[in-house]
Amino acid sequence: MGSTKTVGALLFEGFELLDVFGPLEAWGMLAAAGGWRIVTTAGSAGPVASAQGPAAVAEHALSDCPKLDAILVPGGMGTRREIHDEALLEWLRRRSAEAEVVTSVCTGAALLARAGLLDGRRATTNKAAFGWVAGQGAAVHWTKQARWVEDGPFVTSSGVSAGIDMTLAVIAKLESLEVAERIAVRMEYDWHRDASWDPFAKVHGLV
Amino acid sequence: MGSTKTVGALLFEGFELLDVFGPLEAWGMLAAAGGWRIVTTAGSAGPVASAQGPAAVAEHALSDCPKLDAILVPGGMGTRREIHDEALLEWLRRRSAEAEVVTSVCTGAALLARAGLLDGRRATTNKAAFGWVAGQGAAVHWTKQARWVEDGPFVTSSGVSAGIDMTLAVIAKLESLEVAERIAVRMEYDWHRDASWDPFAKVHGLV
Repeated sequence: MGSTKTVGALLFEGFELLDVFGPLEAWGMLAAAGGWRIVTTAGSAGPVASAQGPAAVAEHALSDCPKLDAILVPGGMGTRREIHDEALLEWLRRRSAEAEVVTSVCTGAALLARAGLLDGRRATTNKAAFGWVAGQGAAVHWTKQARWVEDGPFVTSSGVSAGIDMTLAVIAKLESLEVAERIAVRMEYDWHRDASWDPFAKVHGLV
Repeated sequence: MGSTKTVGALLFEGFELLDVFGPLEAWGMLAAAGGWRIVTTAGSAGPVASAQGPAAVAEHALSDCPKLDAILVPGGMGTRREIHDEALLEWLRRRSAEAEVVTSVCTGAALLARAGLLDGRRATTNKAAFGWVAGQGAAVHWTKQARWVEDGPFVTSSGVSAGIDMTLAVIAKLESLEVAERIAVRMEYDWHRDASWDPFAKVHGLV
């Protein structure tokens, strides 16, 4: 086994709770088995209020965040403001270049798109805000019906709970299918392993 | 419409991330529509580290927590310590008597059982730690195969992700099925509405 790898969750005011903590539950079970650790980061270290109200604590300011092997970019109403934060977009560009995998949940894809990281790539986002997110990246090949989309190091997922399915798929790729399946069972989670499963695209009239 | 109701999530060192934030995502979508608000509470106000590492902020100490209409008791490794905290158990007894609904996720049922609140009632818990939890309440009718179990004001759910299904069922009862379904769609969540759906009981040899 090599040295411990780090997955970092980005926080900002108005992040969506489950976008962060669904994936971190799965990453946490991987970390408990060794080889990975979790960090949280935001513009400043300290409490960061979610869109739902409850706050989580960012351990690191973006400027002193350790090197990340995997990055988790959540969505939430705060993305409407964060797409204009050039310092954050530049952080995403620099950190993505060093990372093995860069993941987004829900409207988190808008931040990756605004940073230009998805240009020429396939990506998806949540289905209720699809038009707004797609408008943040004209050169992105937006996929209307997908639970998640992998293109190179970027893995973008659909809305809220889709982040759990996507994270398990990422763990299956980074580690093994067996490890991901064991985590899904420990979470007592009915893992949707098929990246094309997406009934919500139809609900929102996208297909 | 009456006055705003309050759902309170209990936090303690070593709480399980998804046990808290899966349900709070659903409660948060309900709160956004009005009528409910979310608070977090712990032994002391301030940051509380989860079992996975990342910390959440408790807004209130247990002693100054406002009256709760709904209570969320999560599981996680911290329950092994908290079952011995008589002040917490007494808080659960007093606050449960005032609440409309008292919910637990995963090993959170061990705290309700230790407080004697489940005596003579049917209840369930997660399937990997079933024996340990059942040992915390000899007078509880423990159900080995169930996604969640409702008995009077107490709604106990199975492991980790089961809290999301249970919370949507609670919202369906408190508000309406239509409201719960709308929240599930906004979460892009494949809601398991059948409380008897539980493949994990078999995985762990309980049935």
